[in-house]
Amino acid sequence: MARTVLAARFEQSVTANALRSYLAEFISTFFFVFSVLGSATSSRKLMPDATSDPSSLVLVAIANALALSSVVYIAANISGGHVNPAVTFGMAVGGHISVPTALFYWVSQMLASVMASLLLKMTLVGMHVPTYTIAEEMTGFGASLLEGVLTFALAYTVYAAGDVRRGAQGAIGPLAIGFMAGASVLVAGPFSGGSMNPACAFGSAVTAGSFKNQAVYWIGPLIGAAVAGLIYDNVVFPNDQETDSIRGIPDGVV
Amino acid sequence: MARTVLAARFEQSVTANALRSYLAEFISTFFFVFSVLGSATSSRKLMPDATSDPSSLVLVAIANALALSSVVYIAANISGGHVNPAVTFGMAVGGHISVPTALFYWVSQMLASVMASLLLKMTLVGMHVPTYTIAEEMTGFGASLLEGVLTFALAYTVYAAGDVRRGAQGAIGPLAIGFMAGASVLVAGPFSGGSMNPACAFGSAVTAGSFKNQAVYWIGPLIGAAVAGLIYDNVVFPNDQETDSIRGIPDGVV
Amino acid sequence: MARTVLAARFEQSVTANALRSYLAEFISTFFFVFSVLGSATSSRKLMPDATSDPSSLVLVAIANALALSSVVYIAANISGGHVNPAVTFGMAVGGHISVPTALFYWVSQMLASVMASLLLKMTLVGMHVPTYTIAEEMTGFGASLLEGVLTFALAYTVYAAGDVRRGAQGAIGPLAIGFMAGASVLVAGPFSGGSMNPACAFGSAVTAGSFKNQAVYWIGPLIGAAVAGLIYDNVVFPNDQETDSIRGIPDGVV
Amino acid sequence: MARTVLAARFEQSVTANALRSYLAEFISTFFFVFSVLGSATSSRKLMPDATSDPSSLVLVAIANALALSSVVYIAANISGGHVNPAVTFGMAVGGHISVPTALFYWVSQMLASVMASLLLKMTLVGMHVPTYTIAEEMTGFGASLLEGVLTFALAYTVYAAGDVRRGAQGAIGPLAIGFMAGASVLVAGPFSGGSMNPACAFGSAVTAGSFKNQAVYWIGPLIGAAVAGLIYDNVVFPNDQETDSIRGIPDGVV
Repeated sequence: MARTVLAARFEQSVTANALRSYLAEFISTFFFVFSVLGSATSSRKLMPDATSDPSSLVLVAIANALALSSVVYIAANISGGHVNPAVTFGMAVGGHISVPTALFYWVSQMLASVMASLLLKMTLVGMHVPTYTIAEEMTGFGASLLEGVLTFALAYTVYAAGDVRRGAQGAIGPLAIGFMAGASVLVAGPFSGGSMNPACAFGSAVTAGSFKNQAVYWIGPLIGAAVAGLIYDNVVFPNDQETDSIRGIPDGVV
Repeated sequence: MARTVLAARFEQSVTANALRSYLAEFISTFFFVFSVLGSATSSRKLMPDATSDPSSLVLVAIANALALSSVVYIAANISGGHVNPAVTFGMAVGGHISVPTALFYWVSQMLASVMASLLLKMTLVGMHVPTYTIAEEMTGFGASLLEGVLTFALAYTVYAAGDVRRGAQGAIGPLAIGFMAGASVLVAGPFSGGSMNPACAFGSAVTAGSFKNQAVYWIGPLIGAAVAGLIYDNVVFPNDQETDSIRGIPDGVV
Repeated sequence: MARTVLAARFEQSVTANALRSYLAEFISTFFFVFSVLGSATSSRKLMPDATSDPSSLVLVAIANALALSSVVYIAANISGGHVNPAVTFGMAVGGHISVPTALFYWVSQMLASVMASLLLKMTLVGMHVPTYTIAEEMTGFGASLLEGVLTFALAYTVYAAGDVRRGAQGAIGPLAIGFMAGASVLVAGPFSGGSMNPACAFGSAVTAGSFKNQAVYWIGPLIGAAVAGLIYDNVVFPNDQETDSIRGIPDGVV
Repeated sequence: MARTVLAARFEQSVTANALRSYLAEFISTFFFVFSVLGSATSSRKLMPDATSDPSSLVLVAIANALALSSVVYIAANISGGHVNPAVTFGMAVGGHISVPTALFYWVSQMLASVMASLLLKMTLVGMHVPTYTIAEEMTGFGASLLEGVLTFALAYTVYAAGDVRRGAQGAIGPLAIGFMAGASVLVAGPFSGGSMNPACAFGSAVTAGSFKNQAVYWIGPLIGAAVAGLIYDNVVFPNDQETDSIRGIPDGVV
């Protein structure tokens, strides 16, 4: 019986609409990672010792904010615009997306990130695509905590933006999501790098061939996003109706 | 009789919806303070003498604008998205929120700010979380006047954004609020610090253990916000109808 | 007869709604000028030779964009959110606002600008509030042409944003207006200063007691705004209906 | 017969509404190019060796993001707000605009760009209007690939923003388009210049009298935009209804 349910769910994950959602996640994640890692590369080209200048951090943070706003926007009414394995994980924990569908989302996001990193490396000849690093004085635990707290904020914003009870303000949801990410990069940049997105960290690590500290960018963000979803759904804004209040479930394209 | 009214009001302040509002204020204020103080810390890490560089001020102002837009957005249809004791004070003076409820808002905001500051200090090891300071040549009165004038602008924008008579443009209200704060930081940054939010100043003072000039960040902003509310409600855009035209009263979750 | 019409129009200019519009223009212009001149002062405090650094220009341009978006927003459904004598002039030339009303708008805007400049000077002790200056190699004609072209863009955006035929996109009109101003400051900053608003230039000149080149900031912008209005109304998007398609006429609040 | 269809299409391209669309494209492209090239000129005036500083790149990228958001906004419900020959090409390939109309769009856009460049050169005396250049270590193919990939993102966003099935979020479409362009400039700036718009590259080349590498800014972007349109229309979000789902076709002014 359980097997039948699983099979049914899997079938729902390979419909035409679902496949379009995966493609939408792929395209959005590809361009997000391309912008984030590309702007960091670009900042290093302009100032090789870029890690010690406020204007370099502003550059990367603005790229994050602008790019995330845009890519969430273009995918919003197709796949929900997660663009982030941690957000997808939070949605799966909250029951807004089935586990098989979430796995396909992850595959699309990881593949997009790796391809964006490789294309950057190929195009921007002579430059190393930067990886996320942790400030000397920080521990791995501290860095993961910082990334996790900021991913909580990001995932919570995704929940709030996708809530159909929000009315007219739903229109600016993608901007709120991108702006939260930009503000967070300005905080975490010189300390843990400000990824808040395991796909970003993974893609750049694959390209650089170095998975040092990779766990930092997965453990904190996954926990942060899951907690954010649970708090939003069950405590801050519980749903009394039977229908799902969070938009962007791929089995129902608008 | 008056005691009964007070008791009734107090009871309205501890309903499930009201408690959710306090939690929403807590979450939003926490992440706002985390971004504002965190970006200032981050700017000092990149450039220890950060107070003498325009790009450091741009960094902190952008963090303010982006973070405030986002956190107002996520709380807007739950608690009204005050995120600021001065704004809550202005709403209470204007009668849009009862005094007991306002007190609970204050407690949530102050607690959130202190916890965000402490978490920052704990996470960003080796860094001092900066406090708001006043330029040498300024008096405390001048600094409080500057903070008060800019808080007037912020609170007035909150009033305007929450006005239900605004129609479709209500959708971008959180952006207008965040943008006003960002512009104000660019003005006041090198002079009085650009807090415009007593919670921010209080949280950083608790963490640093120094309450020097704390009154500056309370007196001006509280007066500014109260005057803004009175002018908006009674002079610029008086309400002729009986129902309240300002959104976000916590006893009525949308 | 003509005198009667004039008297009638004058009477329409002193109704309660009209007076509220003047107050709304005063408040919005006050905070716009406060942000624009204040951020320039702040940038000079951080870097006394601020005119030679890209990050100082970014600082002032962002202050323009954020502040104008906000102040247009808060006045939009009361006075139309002109915040600029050139825009009001363009609206009067296009017949969207009567001449007596336009004159009251001007008085409100000029008064607000002078008071904001004086308050800045008073508060930011020891700093000179900067005035708009022209690069050495430019002629007054060239500077006025540059300011005029950019004011055309600004006034055209105000027309487009206020057009009721725009539908849902009307919601982001204040952002489009502020963003256009920000982009223009990035162009004109090091050449003619990037005022595009006679009130800004006037207020700072009064405070500094120097009216050098003042004509530059009036002639170009007034012509630019008038031409923008005429082209929008008559060529690009002519109105076939009898009712006025441009929002924000003060004799009809909302 | 084919000749009759062509004649009919040509006639549809010279109606009053179509002519207004061309004028709208002209005005928007003019001010976009004026901002983009003007801000680059302005950045060089402040820092002659501007190509080696992050804050100069931030300056130009912000000008791109703000200006494109605004100019797309003001033309959106008249011409669709392409402001870019590559976008128009993608719309023509997808069948959303007829070939004769697209040609008139191109003429308007190219003319606007050349005139904006010339006016800049005339006004900003003593300054060279910068042209797009390619980093030494890059090949022409690599640069065109980079520009093409980023133009794909831009054109895809235009498609998504103009989709009538998008609902309330259609309101922020112009911002998503401008933000995507700003993020892309932060990536490509120090490598291929970050044009993503053949009109921009053409106008500056005409003014400078140097068409070196001009092909780079045409081939990649045209291919990128066409592929973006085909993927959006046929794969990601296919249209099942008979009516056209992409807004902004000039033969139907709203």
